[in-house]
Amino acid sequence: MIKKVNHIAIVVSDLDESLRFWVDALGLELAHTEHVASQAVDVAFVPVGDSKIELLKPTDNESGVARYLEKRGAGMHHLCFEVDDIVATLTHLKEVGVQLINEAPVVGSDGRKFAFIHPKSANGVLVELYELTGA
Amino acid sequence: MIKKVNHIAIVVSDLDESLRFWVDALGLELAHTEHVASQAVDVAFVPVGDSKIELLKPTDNESGVARYLEKRGAGMHHLCFEVDDIVATLTHLKEVGVQLINEAPVVGSDGRKFAFIHPKSANGVLVELYELTGA
Repeated sequence: MIKKVNHIAIVVSDLDESLRFWVDALGLELAHTEHVASQAVDVAFVPVGDSKIELLKPTDNESGVARYLEKRGAGMHHLCFEVDDIVATLTHLKEVGVQLINEAPVVGSDGRKFAFIHPKSANGVLVELYELTGA
Repeated sequence: MIKKVNHIAIVVSDLDESLRFWVDALGLELAHTEHVASQAVDVAFVPVGDSKIELLKPTDNESGVARYLEKRGAGMHHLCFEVDDIVATLTHLKEVGVQLINEAPVVGSDGRKFAFIHPKSANGVLVELYELTGA
């Protein structure tokens, strides 16, 4: 059902400053950056092994990520797993009583499907599920 | 320098209850559990792809993990990268001004070497470095 860790998302207050640690100091590679308007974040994608670090910088004060940063400070925000079949996974999780933030997958502009599991059901961890296009 | 994400550590208050989510609901495999006396935690190792989830349950009230759980509740605790040469990595990080919790590697009972980077230098993330025996 779950194939691997797709990414670990980290909320930061300044993307350039954060890259000085993850890229300049640790020696990881910056693959690319993009603005995700639907979530009001700038994202830097930093591959590591078979996964990625995603650095999230809120671009407004209202988004979930912005409120997280204000309340808890910078740090790990969510953990994303890649799955083969997100609809089957969500159906199963619902059947066994796991609380979902998204009961049906959200479809991103790139065709990627994703959904979040509520941290209440996952030891305080915000867990994202990804089904990649063509995967 | 950095090869991959070795594990993502999650602090939990009850190991059996946490396995009901990560193993029973998500369908991940429980590889094994062990008690790590030096850190006063019971650990459940849950492989996923090329990495692992490590569920940490404090076994006293004094350890760093126990204080984290009391202060912040369950959730992601640290992120561990596997490196080829931990001494070279720590030397480099120190040279470029990264604040280290362990300036020299700690050697575990299994010969594994590890060290922590201070969250102040890593966007609030407690980062662990591992050099595996024979790696």
